[in-house]
Amino acid sequence: MRERVIGVLGGMGPEATIAFYARLVAQTPATCDQDHLRVIIDSNPKIPDRTAALVAGGASPVPAMVASIDALGRAGAEFVVVPCVSAHAFLDELRVRVSLPVLSIFDAVADDIRGDPRGIGRVGLLATAGTVRVGLFARHLERQGIVVDLPGAPDQDAVMAAIYEVKSGPTGARRAELRDGLRAVAARLVAGGAQAIVLGCTEIPLIIGRHDAPVPVFDALDALARMARRAAREG
Amino acid sequence: MRERVIGVLGGMGPEATIAFYARLVAQTPATCDQDHLRVIIDSNPKIPDRTAALVAGGASPVPAMVASIDALGRAGAEFVVVPCVSAHAFLDELRVRVSLPVLSIFDAVADDIRGDPRGIGRVGLLATAGTVRVGLFARHLERQGIVVDLPGAPDQDAVMAAIYEVKSGPTGARRAELRDGLRAVAARLVAGGAQAIVLGCTEIPLIIGRHDAPVPVFDALDALARMARRAAREG
Repeated sequence: MRERVIGVLGGMGPEATIAFYARLVAQTPATCDQDHLRVIIDSNPKIPDRTAALVAGGASPVPAMVASIDALGRAGAEFVVVPCVSAHAFLDELRVRVSLPVLSIFDAVADDIRGDPRGIGRVGLLATAGTVRVGLFARHLERQGIVVDLPGAPDQDAVMAAIYEVKSGPTGARRAELRDGLRAVAARLVAGGAQAIVLGCTEIPLIIGRHDAPVPVFDALDALARMARRAAREG
Repeated sequence: MRERVIGVLGGMGPEATIAFYARLVAQTPATCDQDHLRVIIDSNPKIPDRTAALVAGGASPVPAMVASIDALGRAGAEFVVVPCVSAHAFLDELRVRVSLPVLSIFDAVADDIRGDPRGIGRVGLLATAGTVRVGLFARHLERQGIVVDLPGAPDQDAVMAAIYEVKSGPTGARRAELRDGLRAVAARLVAGGAQAIVLGCTEIPLIIGRHDAPVPVFDALDALARMARRAAREG
């Protein structure tokens, strides 16, 4: 069976791109290099900040994202994934401007939640201020019958600050403080009725993981890696 | 100052590619995504095995490597680094067939050793059977006045076996056994007179690091990341 070449529109940020590709490799059963999928990554950190564009009138990231997707196509990528949840606010704009198919991380997460045998009907969403403000992710999940709870305003500010801070490569001790902060936000969402937590920004899994909440945790990076592998093998 | 776009001919293996890019990101002072360098990676694990080509008459990896370098060029890369030491046995063949400059990991390691204030004149080299058989890496260092010691035959076989095994993603316990084996090989090189150890295969830093030998350790992945950053900033 022919495998399709995966394109990764990355660099938003670089650590999330590394974490995404590491998960894709870890998920792939392999006994030698040649068992792995071919992946072309444009890690382009020069793309303007997505959250700034969404909430503060910053420059649109769309032209740079289109240029990077076109570059991936010239290099031989056959479809594209974007390991940055906030960037998905621009997905419709992107799709009409590029020739490669662009998969959606919203679909990847929704598939994982709906496929979970524990029957999850209500989730707490940890995401950037931009993702929350635009509301596309929450609406996407709600159309699939999943109720979405958001943190209160002070908690949302703390989540956003942690996401920006992790991009600057904090020390181990500071990383532990950021983790404790996000754990507390997740715990409040669970106390409010969430049956699961969605790590809905690709930087958040760099701080907290499956063992940081007393309920199931859905990780957008893991979900996207699974979807990319499936799409490559169905090619 | 304009920064040049780094091309990475990767996938040999995928874990070494991830480790290389993670080091490049970690080495870059940054407070936001936009401070990072743009990096285009073709992680192409379908490239035929380098060691098999060098020691067992396997298929040449050169045509696939040329195709990937050309792909990186089409995507906008301005020079190329190759986080696979064994692949450098084919560097002269590659350089005459591609239009992009290809930097050498041998130069990167030699620069690090010669720049070390401790005055290192003799090193022990941990590398693949292919790299050792071809002898290019050792000759390159020796031309710069650095004496190179190689493991004895049984130790060299153990090094090669560990490199192949780490590509299959061993468990933590097995990884610890592989680490202990390589530590013992390094200790014997030091007992024989080596003043430093060169981690001369990009998979070896996935197993052992700076704290696994009683002498300075030069890591080919770190050296290549430093050289790539310098080259991007001099562009």
